[in-house]
Amino acid sequence: MKDKVKGKIVFMNKPMERTYKLTLRAYFENAGLRYRGSIEAAQLGAVAFLLRSLTTRDNDLCHTGGTARRDDADPIPAGSISTKDADLLSALLKKESNVNLFLKFNCKFLTDITSYNVIGQITGTEKPDEIIVVAGHLDSWDVSVGAHDGAGCVHSIEVLRLIKEAGLKPKRTIRAIMFMNEEWGGSGGKEYAQSENRKGETHIAAIESDLGGFMPLGFTVKANETQVASIQKWQYLFEDLGMHWIKPGWGGTDIESLEEYGTVTIGLIPDTQKYFDIHHTKIDVLEQVNPRELEFGAIAMTILSYVLAQEGI
Amino acid sequence: MKDKVKGKIVFMNKPMERTYKLTLRAYFENAGLRYRGSIEAAQLGAVAFLLRSLTTRDNDLCHTGGTARRDDADPIPAGSISTKDADLLSALLKKESNVNLFLKFNCKFLTDITSYNVIGQITGTEKPDEIIVVAGHLDSWDVSVGAHDGAGCVHSIEVLRLIKEAGLKPKRTIRAIMFMNEEWGGSGGKEYAQSENRKGETHIAAIESDLGGFMPLGFTVKANETQVASIQKWQYLFEDLGMHWIKPGWGGTDIESLEEYGTVTIGLIPDTQKYFDIHHTKIDVLEQVNPRELEFGAIAMTILSYVLAQEGI
Repeated sequence: MKDKVKGKIVFMNKPMERTYKLTLRAYFENAGLRYRGSIEAAQLGAVAFLLRSLTTRDNDLCHTGGTARRDDADPIPAGSISTKDADLLSALLKKESNVNLFLKFNCKFLTDITSYNVIGQITGTEKPDEIIVVAGHLDSWDVSVGAHDGAGCVHSIEVLRLIKEAGLKPKRTIRAIMFMNEEWGGSGGKEYAQSENRKGETHIAAIESDLGGFMPLGFTVKANETQVASIQKWQYLFEDLGMHWIKPGWGGTDIESLEEYGTVTIGLIPDTQKYFDIHHTKIDVLEQVNPRELEFGAIAMTILSYVLAQEGI
Repeated sequence: MKDKVKGKIVFMNKPMERTYKLTLRAYFENAGLRYRGSIEAAQLGAVAFLLRSLTTRDNDLCHTGGTARRDDADPIPAGSISTKDADLLSALLKKESNVNLFLKFNCKFLTDITSYNVIGQITGTEKPDEIIVVAGHLDSWDVSVGAHDGAGCVHSIEVLRLIKEAGLKPKRTIRAIMFMNEEWGGSGGKEYAQSENRKGETHIAAIESDLGGFMPLGFTVKANETQVASIQKWQYLFEDLGMHWIKPGWGGTDIESLEEYGTVTIGLIPDTQKYFDIHHTKIDVLEQVNPRELEFGAIAMTILSYVLAQEGI
């Protein structure tokens, strides 16, 4: 393998599986290629790494995303190309014995700067030190504003607004957190979980929205069986919204650091059929978000966070 | 009323109700205004009729749609304006005592021409004269190609293709019909039901898709209680598609003429949160249709039509 790769550009052209109902499953199957691909190519002596964009669509959009690096080795240039360009390159490689590819990247590593999580809350009337977190993340990749990527921020702000608007006074604190820096290492979530400021607070549950502002379908809960069952007993509250399941599963990237403190983490799962068409591309803009669908997600998170604030787990 | 209306332009500015979960319900509440409004305005002596577009969005799009006329009276000019224009006009009418509005319509009545329903089928192996219809309608309003409006045609063609591709041989005939002229009186559906050619055939069930190519949520069935229950027992077949209900309700415009011959009519109900943003506007174009969502609708119709062809009702 090393002989074949040394001095060359490695091109990974594995299409995202189209036949899965859950596009998220297809994404996770391929995301490792993006995350680890350039490191492994570099170890084999490659001079650069190119990835077929992670989407099920045939188009000209380039999808960016998190890529690992090793502190003890120089990274090689790594980037993604559109699915159409990947098909073209693949066809060319089959046809020609000697294909030359010219790559020009303009990106560079900058020094770290200080940034901040943005936090707002409705303080609990009876148990203010017991916290229910509702969360999204503020950052996206630089190719667009990250409208769907940031939909969780709108969902979380809306939770507080809707509860206030309805005149409700939750017993426990409901805290909306817009985490900084999910895309580049997740330091916002890690820092929050480890912060000295959090001492004396109990984080009962954290609900994250990080799969776009589409119609919500259900919740996945990362917790023990008893806790999952405890949350499942509220499933009837969501039937009218067209959400028909609450099941065991993952909570979310930004909130997973809270798990070691015993926090139940919960993911809001919307219909992701279109999410990976848009994810980390230049078309992740406000026009792609349907206000009605976005509102349904906010309503779902509001109901769940409110019952958690009233009843605990 | 007559004194206030005579010689004037009647402007109906009732917004579509935003707070209903089912946008279809909000649409039906207002569609009567569009359908009957100009006749009633004309009877009161109005010279023209203007309608606020039927959508929950604030934008500059004009939504067209079916409008009734009386054979015994001359119609008055009737049209719709965008929701933003309606808000503007409404604000102006509140501010100014005498608002003049200049209308120019270029449309006219043309003479009827002959057109055709388009029909294809897989003939049943055991009971070829017992028919399961899968249907959409070919026509839309002239402001665009009607991509979502015509999604039912794609769904219906796909039913035949998928059954063929899977190598299945249905016992009863599965017939895909693309009805002509739904928008302008529904003569395609009426003609089909009454046609001499249909003699000797039994139309067991007809499934129509006429709410766009969005993610399917369930089916509504127009039939007696026993028949509805008979179809509901197959609900488990659709759970994996994310469809969690089959319930009594309406079948569809094009297929309703079949009801008097004892046919059970069934509507494919997708998520319509965005349908009335697009419905009968210039943006009802192919780019608005997500291929994955469209495929799910086709799969749902394929499964239901195939079990109906195998099991009857």
